[in-house]
Formats: sequence, C-alpha cells, structure tokens
Amino acid sequence: MAKVFLGYKKGLRVEDGHPWVYKNEIENIEGDFEPGDIVEVYNYKGKFIGKGYINPKSQITIRIMTREKDEEINEDFFRRRILDAWNYRKKVIETTSCRVVFGEADFIPALIVDKFSDYLVVQFLSLGIERWKDTIVKVLKEVLNPKGIYERSDVPVRELEGLEQRKGFLTEPFDTTIISEENGVKYYVDIENGQKTGYFLDQKENRYAIKDIVKDADVLDCFCHTGSFSLHAGHFGAKSVLGIDVSEHAVEFARRNAKLNGLENICKFEAHNAFDVLKTWAKEGRKYDVVILDPPAFTKSRSAVEGAVRGYKEINLRALKMVKKGGYLVTCSCSHFMYPELFMEVVMDAARDAKRTLRLVEYRNQSKDHPVLFNSDETLYLKFMILQVI
Amino acid sequence: MAKVFLGYKKGLRVEDGHPWVYKNEIENIEGDFEPGDIVEVYNYKGKFIGKGYINPKSQITIRIMTREKDEEINEDFFRRRILDAWNYRKKVIETTSCRVVFGEADFIPALIVDKFSDYLVVQFLSLGIERWKDTIVKVLKEVLNPKGIYERSDVPVRELEGLEQRKGFLTEPFDTTIISEENGVKYYVDIENGQKTGYFLDQKENRYAIKDIVKDADVLDCFCHTGSFSLHAGHFGAKSVLGIDVSEHAVEFARRNAKLNGLENICKFEAHNAFDVLKTWAKEGRKYDVVILDPPAFTKSRSAVEGAVRGYKEINLRALKMVKKGGYLVTCSCSHFMYPELFMEVVMDAARDAKRTLRLVEYRNQSKDHPVLFNSDETLYLKFMILQVI
Repeated sequence: MAKVFLGYKKGLRVEDGHPWVYKNEIENIEGDFEPGDIVEVYNYKGKFIGKGYINPKSQITIRIMTREKDEEINEDFFRRRILDAWNYRKKVIETTSCRVVFGEADFIPALIVDKFSDYLVVQFLSLGIERWKDTIVKVLKEVLNPKGIYERSDVPVRELEGLEQRKGFLTEPFDTTIISEENGVKYYVDIENGQKTGYFLDQKENRYAIKDIVKDADVLDCFCHTGSFSLHAGHFGAKSVLGIDVSEHAVEFARRNAKLNGLENICKFEAHNAFDVLKTWAKEGRKYDVVILDPPAFTKSRSAVEGAVRGYKEINLRALKMVKKGGYLVTCSCSHFMYPELFMEVVMDAARDAKRTLRLVEYRNQSKDHPVLFNSDETLYLKFMILQVI
Repeated sequence: MAKVFLGYKKGLRVEDGHPWVYKNEIENIEGDFEPGDIVEVYNYKGKFIGKGYINPKSQITIRIMTREKDEEINEDFFRRRILDAWNYRKKVIETTSCRVVFGEADFIPALIVDKFSDYLVVQFLSLGIERWKDTIVKVLKEVLNPKGIYERSDVPVRELEGLEQRKGFLTEPFDTTIISEENGVKYYVDIENGQKTGYFLDQKENRYAIKDIVKDADVLDCFCHTGSFSLHAGHFGAKSVLGIDVSEHAVEFARRNAKLNGLENICKFEAHNAFDVLKTWAKEGRKYDVVILDPPAFTKSRSAVEGAVRGYKEINLRALKMVKKGGYLVTCSCSHFMYPELFMEVVMDAARDAKRTLRLVEYRNQSKDHPVLFNSDETLYLKFMILQVI
C-alpha cells in the first residue's frame, strides 16, 4: 500500500478529524498506486493519520475512510459502516423515507443512499467509492433488503473526479415513480428524473415543525417544488395553501401530490417566478397568515456570496411585507456559505427595510438523518427559521 | 408627558427595534417626570421612536413599551399584550407548564410570568413595571383565571433599579409546593424557595428531544438540579439514570420527583461536585451510553468569558471521555455570552483533547415559550446540542 506524506504543518484539519486531504497538502508519495486505491496518510513527522482512497485527478486527492491502521477496507468494512449508519437512523428518525448514508458524515466519503419506502437511490460521487460499487450494492441488499436500487450519479461533481455522469438500475428494473410518506403526508417521487435523488429529505423534520402555525391559516409557499411544505400545511389544517414554483413540471407534480392526499381543494399550485410575483402581490396588498420561503441554493461558491445575500434579502423583504401582523415567516437557506449568523443578519436587514419586528420561534438545521460531522462545516448547510412577524 | 431626545446618532439599535435606551444615549429631556413614568423617545432629528417607562437610577434608563405614538399605556394595553402572549403560547406549545410572558420578547419589558398547572409565578424586574403591578395582576386573573399567584421578585437585578427584593402571595395564600407536568413527566415545583420561579421551563422541548437516544441506555445526568433531564430519561425508557448535583437539597427533591413518577428504581441521585467526580470517574474508566451536561451559567458577564470557556471545556472534555463509542453527549449552555459558534468551538476543542469524533445530531435553542426578539440578542441565550460520540 502506498504511503502519502503531508507537507510541513499541512493537513492539520485532517489530523483533527476532517476527512479531506487536498492536493497541495501532499509532500511526497512512497510506493505505487492506481487512482482509486487505498493509501496510508502520514503527517510531516511521520505520524499515521488514517487510510483513504486517492485520486490524483481531484483537488480533494484523498478521502480518509478510517483512522485505524489495522482496519482493512473490504466488504466487512462497508458492512460495518452501513450497519452503523442504518442503526443510527432507526434510533433517531422514522425511516419510511430517509437518508441512509450521508457520505463523509457517515464515514463513507462520497456515498449517498436515500430510501423511499422499499426502494433505494444511490449516488457514487468519487472515483474511490465507485471502485466499491458492487460491494456496496451487495451490502445494501443484505442490510436493507430493498425491492430495487437506482443509481443517480448524474451529477457534475463526478467530472472533477474524471468520471462520466450516469444513471440507471442497479437491480432488476422497476417503476421509478414511487409513492413514499413522511409525517403522515404521502408523495410521489420521480427517482429517475426528479432533482438529486428525487426528493429533498433534509427538510423532513422542518416540514413537521410548521404543524402548529399553519392551523386555520392562509399559507403562501414560495419555491414549492413538488409541494412538500404545501402538502404538510394542508395536512396540518391550513385553511388554504397556494404553492408557487417557476417550473410547470414541478407544479404539475405538486398537483398530483395534493390529489394523492385528498388535499386538492385546499392546496393550489401555480407556475410563477417567485421574485416577480412577490413584488407584484406585495404591491397589491395581498396578505397571508404564513409565508414559506424554501429557495434553491442561490450560491454554491464563496465568491458569489454577495449576490446570494442580495437574493435572500430581496425575497425575505418581499415575503415579510405579505405577512399579516402576528403571522409567521418560515424561511430557509441551503447554501453552505450562508452561515447561520449571516443568514440571520440578512433576514434582520430585510425586516428593518420592511419595518417589521421579528420574533424567532424556532431555529433548526437539517434533519437528524443528515448528521453534521464536527470539524467539517461542509456537512452543516441547512438553516430553517420560524419567525413571528409583528 | 416628558419628551426624551437621544444624542447625535445615538440609539440606532432602539430605532431598529431594540427596547432598551441606555443612560449615555440620552441628550436632553423636556418636561417633568417621576421615576417609573411613561415618556416619549425621539431621535436626534426629532423623529418619534416610541414610548416607554423611565428610571434615571438604572443604566437601562428607558424600556420601550410601544412604537405607536397614539397607543396609550393603560389597563387595556396590558390586556392586549398579555392576551397576545397567551394566545401565542396556546398556538405553539403545550401550556400545562410554560412561560406566559417573557419580558422584552413579549413587548412587556421586565415582566416574567410562569405558569405551573393552575398557578402563576410573577417577577417584576424594574421600577417601571412595578408601577403597573396591580393592573397586571388584575389582567392575569382575568385572562388566565389562576388558582393563585405568587411573586418571586427576590432577584438582585432589582437593586440596579433602586428596588428592594421581595417575594410573597399576590392572591390568597396557597400551598407553594405545586405538582406540574411536562412531556408526560410530573414534577414538584417549590415556587417559594426554588431557583428563579421554581423551575427552568426553557428546556422543556429540549428535554423531550432526548427521547430517542436514552431508550435502553445507561445515563449520567450532571448538574441535575431537581432531576428534570433524569426523569425524562427514565420516562423515555432508560435502563438506568444517575443524576448528580452539588446541592443535597436539589438531590433530595429529585428523589421525591422520581417517586412521584414511579421511577425510583431507575433514577438514582447523588450529591457530588460534578467537576470532581467526573475527573475521578473518567480515570476509573466508568462509561455511559448517554452523558447529559446542563450546568448553571458559568458567566453572567462579558469579562468572565475566558474563565467560562475553560469551565465548559473542562466538563465537556471529562464527560466525552465517559461516553461509550457510538453513545451520545447532551450538552447545554445558558450563558448569554457563550454565543453558539463559541460554544460549538469549545466542545470541538474538548473533543480534540479527548481524541473523540463528534457528529451533531440536533442543535436547539430555548423552548418556543421563550421566543427570541430579533435585534435583541439578550433574549437568545440557551444552546442545546445532542452529539454522537465516535
């Protein structure tokens, strides 16, 4: 096995528990290796740090798999890791639909496994994990006994690893429109063509968190996608719900989801650009008891933070103007770079401009099946706030 | 009514919604007033900001009650405010035991009202609110129809206002040991001699949050006070619970609470200094599935933060060493000045020293009946984390 030595005082974060070794932290490599092989990593003093897989093509050149020198990376290793991940979910969350493996945070870097009822959707996001695909599929079948597994490795990040994008069945084919359920709400998931793995599971507990404030309320749900927050609002007793999304396809899907729950008379959906209509409707004086903002990530990069801040401020400002006195704003950000304090400040800034006073009812992060590895802020990304607007 | 004018560019936070005007922000005062009177506040340009009560003895000289010039401060004002506060609790939280009024965050500065079953405990923390005591008691009786009201204004902060400390009945006397309930757990509250109003309601939802991780677990609860986390652990299916607190009196009270819930065989309590025994027990190799740390505020002042950081690091380090691999640390801080990132960093630092890897399962703040007024970071003080320890 090749030995990788880090440079003088390089990779201190890795020693503290972060799983990523960057290209520029590597001083020299002893021994031969193929891309994707397991290598041993040592600091500049020659102290063993861990073992992980290497890909010289990627800026994240090594991802640590274990900190124990005598732990072999083999089928048993993946069985232990996947069992740990699954047992954790069974302990802390309802598992009809949930994320079973969350990559680095489950100590299986670059592997994502989502469960929708009896089906699994899997993403292999690096060359090193791709190598173990057959083993992982075998272990997933054994541990979770799914009716089918579908691969959704059609993500651009694979290209940084020198891999092509790919999707398709990893078991016998099956109908890729699945009915799943969370918090008592049923929904269709299009695991073949939906975004990412077909559904955003990370908001599951946050969707439940709106339960008390939507009762008997008129609700506006912006960036509603396939309607998850809208359906929860309807299910929890909202008087009326209007969900808007720029995508006709998403809105059509949301309508089907409403029917599936018998909520088609409560939950209505319209295709609009939220930025445009919020402006118009705010001017017209439309008011709601609850406005929900769950926008897509405005920024994926540090350099675009300024633009994202403007975007978040704008929609929050417009939404705030449309909340009745004493009503509620539910506002989210899934951008890594909008760290919690910055996000709070942006919303506060919007409140100042809208001349509204805010009370924080509840602050939350992503659901427990998306745990956050301390020392790796990459895994803490979702901010969710319920605010009362005075 | 006297008019108070703030200095050049002074009180900008007040204009943005913060309720406090400090002595050094005031430029001049037109008209006569008595300490405790309602005054009008204007910025240096002469723009109206709000109305509030004044106390020249206090560094927080004025606390804003309303931003509306024509809103009179009278019995109706308090009726509206208290009704708003009560309706909010009825909407967002189970109200058998809860905080009904949380001072500034409910726009009634310096008034605290806690409810334990059919009884209320009230604190009047400033001269300005003391003046309205009879009105407030009248309205509380009308809105909440309590069996009795007890005053717990025996807090040093009153002396900054030139007020003496005081406690006693505000209605006919009644037995001041009350049985109340939260999350299905019963507890005695000593509203006459217990800390603050007799019980810390702000952790109510956090106590519920430990439900899944304590099942079948051996639990150590440090700084257990009258046993609230311990009892919840027992109630939610822990195999064994050991609660420790430095106060013999608290421990005795906790034992009574265990009996009240039929949990005396599961929940045991011992009087120890947590700092001392954690050190000894960690050395002895004692291990638990779950360790809970809910220490009192190590600091109430900005200048003592450094010492507090050391204190938090020390107990978290010791506790981490006693958690079994894959077990959980539940750790809290109720110090204002330990802001969330600092607290996370301290715990991370402890993990580094303990050579343990941490996963954040859930991050929470205080319960929803202690809402956080944006623009007033004084009201966001409680940090609560569930961490898995690898």
